[in-house]
Parts: sequence; structure tokens; C-alpha cells
Amino acid sequence: VEDRYVAIDMGGTQLRLALADRDLNLCSVVKESTDHSRGPESIVDQVQRMLEEALQESGTEGKALQRGVVASPGPLDTQTGIVHGAPNMPGWEGEVHLRSMLEDRLQIPIQPVNDANVAAVGEFRRGAGRGTRNLVYLTVSTGIGGGVIVEGRLLEGSKGMAGEIGHMTIDMHGPTCNCGNIGCLEVLASGTNIGRRFREALAAGGTSAVTEWLDGRGATAADVARGAAEGDHLASTVWSDCMEALGFGVVNCIHIFNPDMVVLGGGVTNAGDLVFLPVLSVVDRYAMVLPREGVGIVRAELRDNAGLYGAASLAIEAMETL
Amino acid sequence: VEDRYVAIDMGGTQLRLALADRDLNLCSVVKESTDHSRGPESIVDQVQRMLEEALQESGTEGKALQRGVVASPGPLDTQTGIVHGAPNMPGWEGEVHLRSMLEDRLQIPIQPVNDANVAAVGEFRRGAGRGTRNLVYLTVSTGIGGGVIVEGRLLEGSKGMAGEIGHMTIDMHGPTCNCGNIGCLEVLASGTNIGRRFREALAAGGTSAVTEWLDGRGATAADVARGAAEGDHLASTVWSDCMEALGFGVVNCIHIFNPDMVVLGGGVTNAGDLVFLPVLSVVDRYAMVLPREGVGIVRAELRDNAGLYGAASLAIEAMETL
Repeated sequence: VEDRYVAIDMGGTQLRLALADRDLNLCSVVKESTDHSRGPESIVDQVQRMLEEALQESGTEGKALQRGVVASPGPLDTQTGIVHGAPNMPGWEGEVHLRSMLEDRLQIPIQPVNDANVAAVGEFRRGAGRGTRNLVYLTVSTGIGGGVIVEGRLLEGSKGMAGEIGHMTIDMHGPTCNCGNIGCLEVLASGTNIGRRFREALAAGGTSAVTEWLDGRGATAADVARGAAEGDHLASTVWSDCMEALGFGVVNCIHIFNPDMVVLGGGVTNAGDLVFLPVLSVVDRYAMVLPREGVGIVRAELRDNAGLYGAASLAIEAMETL
Repeated sequence: VEDRYVAIDMGGTQLRLALADRDLNLCSVVKESTDHSRGPESIVDQVQRMLEEALQESGTEGKALQRGVVASPGPLDTQTGIVHGAPNMPGWEGEVHLRSMLEDRLQIPIQPVNDANVAAVGEFRRGAGRGTRNLVYLTVSTGIGGGVIVEGRLLEGSKGMAGEIGHMTIDMHGPTCNCGNIGCLEVLASGTNIGRRFREALAAGGTSAVTEWLDGRGATAADVARGAAEGDHLASTVWSDCMEALGFGVVNCIHIFNPDMVVLGGGVTNAGDLVFLPVLSVVDRYAMVLPREGVGIVRAELRDNAGLYGAASLAIEAMETL
């Protein structure tokens, strides 16, 4: 029986599960909307059903399963496998013993890992970062998550919480972030916050053609991007302020990690050049010459599958280093 | 003949050299004022003389020497061993091929490593960081240098330039740093900049009892610290602004690296509680609970010898991984 690894991507919207072989081929992928009906319990049930489905679909015997990694919502302590009050998961109040819940149910070793860290590994192994050794990954979405690869290995830190680049202060006199810190990259440049900053600018008396298509609903980052692309003044101002912040975030990553590559993913990066041109402009102006030289600042490639490739890759790695 | 390693700490003021055995005992330490008379050439001459002195003094045969590491001024590319225009070294204009110059002269393999990175290794192996696995070291002195230990190994990055925590933007609307970037930790909180901020506050019309003892000379960080300790209002305000910035720098390190410990060294930390109390206050208020929990924020222990212990340790490590 050939070894198989279980990769699980536990998102607030979608739950994905795959079986992978030792060469990181995904042999069977199952996707469902996340079932929040009974908090973590219903999700663990769902994972078990999806695993059975994947085994059947691919004709894999249960005893082929070696271990699994789950791209998990945070804040997660990887040492204990406990998630502490995940804000995006309804019903996950207090401590959720995700590792032990999954291990009890699936009967194989399971390691939960912060979802942005997992995606970083995915992009490193199979995405934009193939062939690099030192990589910084940022996902600019509802929040801003990060993951760092150092000499080919995920930077974990003492509790598996390293890489929280979204919660790096870049404006110490700026607004308060959801995390309680001041002027984090996330509160200045995440999708949610791009929308918020634009709505605040409107509320402060700004006028914008964007309101014409909003029809009374609140503006989102996509609206601000569209407005900026169409040359609307207020949208352009807010958008460029946010992208400037993101640019300084990338400068910091270059100075702190001296990487080969910075990979930007997440919904906001769908705006393409509208993101990359201003970010590159800040980086080229403000990063130190030597560490900046030769660093690719590129778009993530794997999208939805970054989590599955990353989780499978970490499961295989864990097996190899046992 | 027992193996010996050469540790060199090449500072702008002092040059230090030691021989070390495989167990990281420094067997012979030589110190001199750095000879800048002929730029890098005179320093290399000096290193050669000091090495001969150390060999004689300790009765060591030249053939015992395995390799050396030099804690080098930056900016340094460790891949090439070239220093690119070190601002604190008179006569080091343009490229200085430090590795090849030293190897030609000393006839053993020599690796130059960024001085703050070397000091981080020293504190990790023999100083405040003994027994940790993940450590962030900051030296708050003329500038602010940094070094990071990840799972027991120095974070190098692709050109050995990682750990430039002093050049992390924490106030994107702040003043321009010497490095060209905006609102770096260094331009907000290094010794030189503490003095500058105080002098600017005076020039802007502030009054302070500190001027009484200055006797017309410019105030330094030590003067600001003394004024703050004595309750002078202007000195206290400037000092606490600077320490707040340093606190946000430490918060960022905790979020980015999830370390076991943050070690603060350099001349400014001689002010003791005047540094640590405000820094801890920012950290306890703004860092996320889980990564902050259990992280010691402590003073460096080795002072002048951090560079020698670090350099010796890296030389021994390089031998072991050959």
C-alpha cells in the first residue's frame, strides 16, 4: 500500500480536503461549504465524511493514511493544537482543541498549522515560489496573513505563530487594529480596511462617483479598486494610501528577511497592476539597494489550492523528519 | 594539534581578535584601537599582527587554525564577502573585498558576517539567550542593529542581510532615515536619533534643565536619559516618544518571529529601567496575547564580548556543517 497524506484547508467559507502521495500529487480533492451549524463539532464531522468520500473515490485503503495537516483558522498554538477564539469561525468561542478532536476522529496524527503559513508553503513548493530558498508570502484579503520560508523551511517560532506580518505596526500613530495593536499593516491595507477607509472618507464629506453604483450599500475594496481604475479622485486617494502602506510592509519584509522573493496573494491582489505598480514604486524608492536587488515581487499562483498543496507538503515533510 | 578558530570583531572604534577552541572557550583575546590610517588596508595589516600576537601569547601553532569569522561593518553581502560603502569606516568607499583581503593575508577561510548578526549569535550561545531556540536581538546604539536566531540558527537571508530590524518602518509618515527609508525604528529610537530629537525639540523653542549642564555642546542620548531620570519635562517627553517607538519595534518582532526571548543590547540600554519599563509597557499593551506570553524581554549580558563569542561560534558551526 502506497503512503497517502491528508491535506485539509479549513476556511470560514469553504472546507477542502485532499489525499496526496509522497510526490505531492493531489490524488483526490473534495470541497464543501463549511458547516458551522454546531461550531467546531459539525466541522469535524464534515472532515470525517469528506475523508471517507476521498478514500472511496480514489479507492484508497484507510491504512495507507500516514498523517494529516490542517490549514487552520487562528489564533492557533501549534504546540498544543489549540485554537484560541477564532474570530471568523462562528461558535469557536474559547479554546478549541482542534488537533485532539481531529485525531480522535480520524485516527491518524494531525497537525494544525496557521492557514497563511500553510499557503506560504504551498506557493513555495508548487506556486510562484518554486526554486526559491527564502520567501515571504502575504495574503491581502479580509485580513492580511503572512508566512515566511527560511532556507526552505517554514518559519514557525516557538508556538507556530511566526509570520504575523499583517500585525506589524507600520504607522505607530495610526488607527487601532482588530488585534488591539496600533497601525498594523492589516488595519491600513486589508480588503476590509480599504473599504472602511473609503467609507470614512465619504462620511467625512468626500464626494465620489463610486456612490453612483453603490445604490446605498457600503463600498468594498473592489468598489474602491474600480473607482481608482476609473480615475475617481477620492477612490484613487484612498487606494493609493492603502497601497503605500502595503509597499512599506513589503519594504519591511525585505529588510527583515532578505528574501529571494515576495509573493502577494489574496482577493485584493486580483486588482493586478493597481496593486503591484504602487507597491513596487514604494519598494524601489525606499528599500535598501543590496537586499532589494534581485527580489521578485510577484503574484501568488495557486489561489484556492495553496492551502491543500501546503498542507500536503507539510505532512510529507513531517514524515520525512520523523 | 587541537583545532583553533579565529574570532574577529571589526568595530569602527575597537578591533578585537580571539582564538577559540571547539568548546567556545576564548583562549587568547587581543584588543586595539582600530587603525583607519589607510582604510581597509591598515585594518587588515592590524588583524594580521594581532593574530600573530594571539598565536604567540597562547603558544598556538599556525596549523591549528581552521577558519575564522569576522563581525564586519555593513552593508555586507556574505555571499561575495564584499562590504559596500560602510558609513562608519573612514576610507571604505565603494566595494571592499573584505573576505578575499583577509583570506589572502591570513591563509585560512574567513567569513565576514554582519556585526549585529554576530552579536545575536554570541548572546544566544553564551549570553542572555542561552537555552532559547528562537531569539531576537536588538542593539540600540549609534544605530539600531538586529539579529535573529531561528530554531538555533542565525537567520541569514539570501545575501546574509536578514535581521535589519533597525530599518523596519514603524512610522510611515515619520522622518527619513539615513538608509533612505521612512520612519525606520533607527531614525526614531537609536542613540544618535534620541539626541537629534531632543536637540530639535530645543531648537523648536522647548526649554529644559538639561541645557544647564550641556555648556553649549549638543545633547546626546545620555543627556536625554539623565534629564528624563531627573524629571525634566522636555527630556522626558522626547525619551518616552523614543522608547514608545522601540516598544513598537519589539511588538513587531514578537508578531513576526514569535520568539522565546527578545534581547536588547547597545549603549542606550545602559539606562536600564528607563528603557525596559516603557518598552514593556508598550509590549504588554499592544502585543497579541499568545505570542507575547512567556517571552522574556531582557538585557544583553556579554557587552564587548558578544562579537567575539558570536564569531567564534559561527566559525565552529561552519566547520561542523562542512
